Amino acid sequence: MKVKEGIQLFRIDPDEDFHLRDHDPGWAGTKEMRELGEDELKDRAKQILQNRLAELADAQEVLYANDIYSVLLIFQAMDAAGKDGTIKHVMSGVNPQGCQVFSFKKPSDEELDHDFLWRYQRNLPERGRIGIFNRSYYEDVLVVKVHPELLERQKLPAGEKGDRFWKHRYQSINDFERHLARNGTLILKFFLNVSKDEQKKRFLERLTNPEKHWKFSEADVAEREHWDDYQSAFEDAIRETTTGSVPWYVIPADHKWVTRTLVAIIIAEKVRELGLAHPVLTEEQSARLADARKRLEGE
Amino acid sequence: MKVKEGIQLFRIDPDEDFHLRDHDPGWAGTKEMRELGEDELKDRAKQILQNRLAELADAQEVLYANDIYSVLLIFQAMDAAGKDGTIKHVMSGVNPQGCQVFSFKKPSDEELDHDFLWRYQRNLPERGRIGIFNRSYYEDVLVVKVHPELLERQKLPAGEKGDRFWKHRYQSINDFERHLARNGTLILKFFLNVSKDEQKKRFLERLTNPEKHWKFSEADVAEREHWDDYQSAFEDAIRETTTGSVPWYVIPADHKWVTRTLVAIIIAEKVRELGLAHPVLTEEQSARLADARKRLEGE
Repeated sequence: MKVKEGIQLFRIDPDEDFHLRDHDPGWAGTKEMRELGEDELKDRAKQILQNRLAELADAQEVLYANDIYSVLLIFQAMDAAGKDGTIKHVMSGVNPQGCQVFSFKKPSDEELDHDFLWRYQRNLPERGRIGIFNRSYYEDVLVVKVHPELLERQKLPAGEKGDRFWKHRYQSINDFERHLARNGTLILKFFLNVSKDEQKKRFLERLTNPEKHWKFSEADVAEREHWDDYQSAFEDAIRETTTGSVPWYVIPADHKWVTRTLVAIIIAEKVRELGLAHPVLTEEQSARLADARKRLEGE
Repeated sequence: MKVKEGIQLFRIDPDEDFHLRDHDPGWAGTKEMRELGEDELKDRAKQILQNRLAELADAQEVLYANDIYSVLLIFQAMDAAGKDGTIKHVMSGVNPQGCQVFSFKKPSDEELDHDFLWRYQRNLPERGRIGIFNRSYYEDVLVVKVHPELLERQKLPAGEKGDRFWKHRYQSINDFERHLARNGTLILKFFLNVSKDEQKKRFLERLTNPEKHWKFSEADVAEREHWDDYQSAFEDAIRETTTGSVPWYVIPADHKWVTRTLVAIIIAEKVRELGLAHPVLTEEQSARLADARKRLEGE
């Protein structure tokens, strides 16, 4: 399978009738791939991941040297879907000087005193850099939709409620992303799609394995009770904010090796498509370098 | 004349065929007003200004106590049109704790490494406060349009040029302002419309009057040579970004007393229209205050 076709399997197009039920969290290769057997398939995936990581490290250098585009990676998911692990495994090869991860927690009082996009805008990556949002402004149409009491804290003027309110939030997000895309930010949005069973398994593992105790939080189990509301909020958000210039990718997340390999493939491919090369010097710049060399050598 | 009708004279509606030539910089009252004679008219304007400033100081306290809306005042104009003086005279009565002025100069390297809205977004007023932009993101469709070499410095990806490029900038601005308006920011945009003759007079005054020497800059005279380009850029920008929810006000600026009075009237009226009142305590809050009083008295 060609990379471009492969990517298309997971990209949500704006004109499709998107339903999460059509996307299998347990996906682990096409039929053709699965004929290789699980061990062989995992080995190949590992190899692909390694290659892509090397590509990505190179790509990021070129991105940095060009200083024109920035890359914004957005990760959204239910708890234990593997956001942290994916970021760690996919981005570890990249020079931290050109890459920054932001994890957004409960908004501060200062942040609540601004519109919901404000705290994310402040942390956008500069040209030449990769910014990673571990959770993002999408929380404002996800957790905030599931827990309307959080909306109360946002101190909004009395006004539209219900569907119209959320439609306007989606529109604000689409407008914002379109503006960024036009001005040189490549935005890649990943929804890591884990199943309810796999989440349970991972939560239990956090409770059993002492090395993972720290990752467990009672709040996560409480949120699990809102599973269906979250799925519905994700479905709405993805459907309403997948656009031609900034589509969503729905990544199967029951198998960590699948998630990581797919995310690495997509990032490497999309950065490659920017068509960047190491900047070529103008004649004037070359002359200036030659001059500098002469002066150094003449010291 | 009623205040609302008066304001309408200077508001640009999205469906009108806007031309600067239809707006007289030397406007100094309706025919009816001018029959009063200049001295009487100026006295009345001064009285109105005083009343509005008092209103505004009160309104700002209520804004602050409610902590729901913010107000963003945007001033754009040719040099010497009176931006600084207007801000000084109209806003001096307001508690500085709830009011902040930002003057935007040449963008820094860090700012150029982001999209053109970024540095303005960072400085948006918090809920409950009045923020004043002395120049704003409109410079990115004004001075940058008149001097395309500034666009080069913005390090944008190669892409659309010409009309389409500027249309997209207007669209980004409109999307951004609509988002802010929906989320509780009252945006008031003032173009102080000075004539070329009056600008010359004010420049000469800066050269003659030692107290005003500091305000003179040779660069201003250089920019004056691009007068027609600027007028055309202002006309386009105002036409394309005056919207139902966030209209432009084109304020006659050849007479300072006219400018100041009109701006004060518009701000006071628009803040009043938010319909804010001092917050009323809930029963629970009243009970808590009563309890606090009891404890203090019992000490």
